[in-house]
Amino acid sequence: RISWISDIVVVVSPENVETMKTIIEKYGHKRVTVVEGGITRHRSIFNGLKVFAENEFSSHLLWKPEVVIIHDAVRPFVEEDIVSKVVMAAKEHGAAGAIRPLVSTVIASAADGCLDHSLERARYRASEMPQAFLFDIIYEAYQQSTDYDLDYGTECLHLALKYCKTNAKLVEGTADLWKVTYKRDLYAAESIIKDNLSQKVYVITNVRETLAQVGFLLPESLKSQIKVEAISGSLSKSDSHLQNIISGQCYNFVCVNDKRCAIQETQELVDMLEKSNIPLLYPVVLILVHLDISENNSFSIGMEDLTTIKKFARETKKKNILVYGLLIQYK
Amino acid sequence: RISWISDIVVVVSPENVETMKTIIEKYGHKRVTVVEGGITRHRSIFNGLKVFAENEFSSHLLWKPEVVIIHDAVRPFVEEDIVSKVVMAAKEHGAAGAIRPLVSTVIASAADGCLDHSLERARYRASEMPQAFLFDIIYEAYQQSTDYDLDYGTECLHLALKYCKTNAKLVEGTADLWKVTYKRDLYAAESIIKDNLSQKVYVITNVRETLAQVGFLLPESLKSQIKVEAISGSLSKSDSHLQNIISGQCYNFVCVNDKRCAIQETQELVDMLEKSNIPLLYPVVLILVHLDISENNSFSIGMEDLTTIKKFARETKKKNILVYGLLIQYK
Repeated sequence: RISWISDIVVVVSPENVETMKTIIEKYGHKRVTVVEGGITRHRSIFNGLKVFAENEFSSHLLWKPEVVIIHDAVRPFVEEDIVSKVVMAAKEHGAAGAIRPLVSTVIASAADGCLDHSLERARYRASEMPQAFLFDIIYEAYQQSTDYDLDYGTECLHLALKYCKTNAKLVEGTADLWKVTYKRDLYAAESIIKDNLSQKVYVITNVRETLAQVGFLLPESLKSQIKVEAISGSLSKSDSHLQNIISGQCYNFVCVNDKRCAIQETQELVDMLEKSNIPLLYPVVLILVHLDISENNSFSIGMEDLTTIKKFARETKKKNILVYGLLIQYK
Repeated sequence: RISWISDIVVVVSPENVETMKTIIEKYGHKRVTVVEGGITRHRSIFNGLKVFAENEFSSHLLWKPEVVIIHDAVRPFVEEDIVSKVVMAAKEHGAAGAIRPLVSTVIASAADGCLDHSLERARYRASEMPQAFLFDIIYEAYQQSTDYDLDYGTECLHLALKYCKTNAKLVEGTADLWKVTYKRDLYAAESIIKDNLSQKVYVITNVRETLAQVGFLLPESLKSQIKVEAISGSLSKSDSHLQNIISGQCYNFVCVNDKRCAIQETQELVDMLEKSNIPLLYPVVLILVHLDISENNSFSIGMEDLTTIKKFARETKKKNILVYGLLIQYK
């Protein structure tokens, strides 16, 4: 995702190495080397760094970088901007790390389980990730670390300070850098991803002239809540609409039609989405709206049409495209 | 909610006093006194405490308690158990507060924005709420506090230590005590509430003998995911089923019927739910499943039935009961 990162070393526990390799292949990640982790955080990071300096863990030594970034997988929402800031600061100061204000006051407890003293909140910060270091500094620090450091320590900035006299530059990070720790954090992460996926919707209206106003009214009423791209007329492979859709990285589509069962037109959209790799990571939602403009006074849809739509939806689901049908009587 | 708490003082900013009074009335909260807050956290808490000791903020002085609990509204998921533990510890030690392990390492920054030192994470804790105090101790501490304390301090335990030499007992709290601070925390809180509401569902099957198996199969298949209470046969006001439902504090109902439009039976359930106050705080979801067992090969539902259900759902929505209709063809 970030072009100026030359190599990515993923450190995972031995039992998860194969799973990680499968994930890397499935999503087509490039520049990735998988390394077995150790029994503590510091030992795992040390293993990762050795790939650039020793032959112990990898058959081929990776090119030794000037700056190395250390990041946790439990902080999935890191933006390029903060990574860049931390790297530039590390180049200048030897080490740098993202920080956040403390949410709660931090206190020290005495041996009897009572308050010893409380820290003045404004003077302290939570140390977050990413952190970056001149490779030679952090590697030297890990080589000099004692077994006690490697087994009980948690803070890379502390090792750089202790063994290389390097006071890391602290860089203010965004709130999204928080550590996904508890079940509620999974809820929060899920909602943030859903929020990002629901930023934009394409409304594709393929209806007779009498219904053209629907193609106008729906996008208008959606606009207050979401970014809407409205497309009128038929989708066809020669159309420039398709290029827009692909480049739009959109996960939500509403197709308005007045035909009984607009599977064929929809199939083109599905084929195109599939080729685009857009549904690879997250599901695409496709809502087929069938506008019933007949004067008939009862809703009625044949079993045959229904079976066709259900079968179609079952097939597209395998491609991570979720198709929903909606029948609306419109007068 | 907790019977042994004799008075609840809610401190809110002056512009929100009326809103808070409306909320208290709407939800029928008892034992509550609303007090205007100050411009900082400590000044607001001090105002709340004065209700028990001075006539400044309330026309009638409340009975002075032995122990007072201080809690933040931003920590909505506090269980009686932790409140009780903190109160008992305060009775013994004079002061007590909930704590949690630190999620990230805490560091001190120097004036130049670089790392000064990092704290050993295991020796420190995050100070959370609730906290409890012998009333005389915390009130004395606030009375002795300087303007600087009241304007820039954040920690009540610190005031008790500084002015009354009371080392608070620290009580390990649950993960749910976290402080709702960022947008992601609202997502998490919403998901926790939804999770709690979806713990249990009542399946009410009111169908002919030929369909009795549905009343058995649906609960069976739901059981792996949620606690299910199955009720067969008609609901009627004389029925003991109703007592179960009321005492069950359940927010989810599935009513299976083979009649076209089972509004009348449903109305009884709605009336009963409304009287029970269950939908007062959270919405109740009521799914009306219409099993179509006819040999007819097409789904068909008349406009009249549809209009009836829509109108019914619109009425119940005002009572915070959300009615959904589901038409299933069953062979």
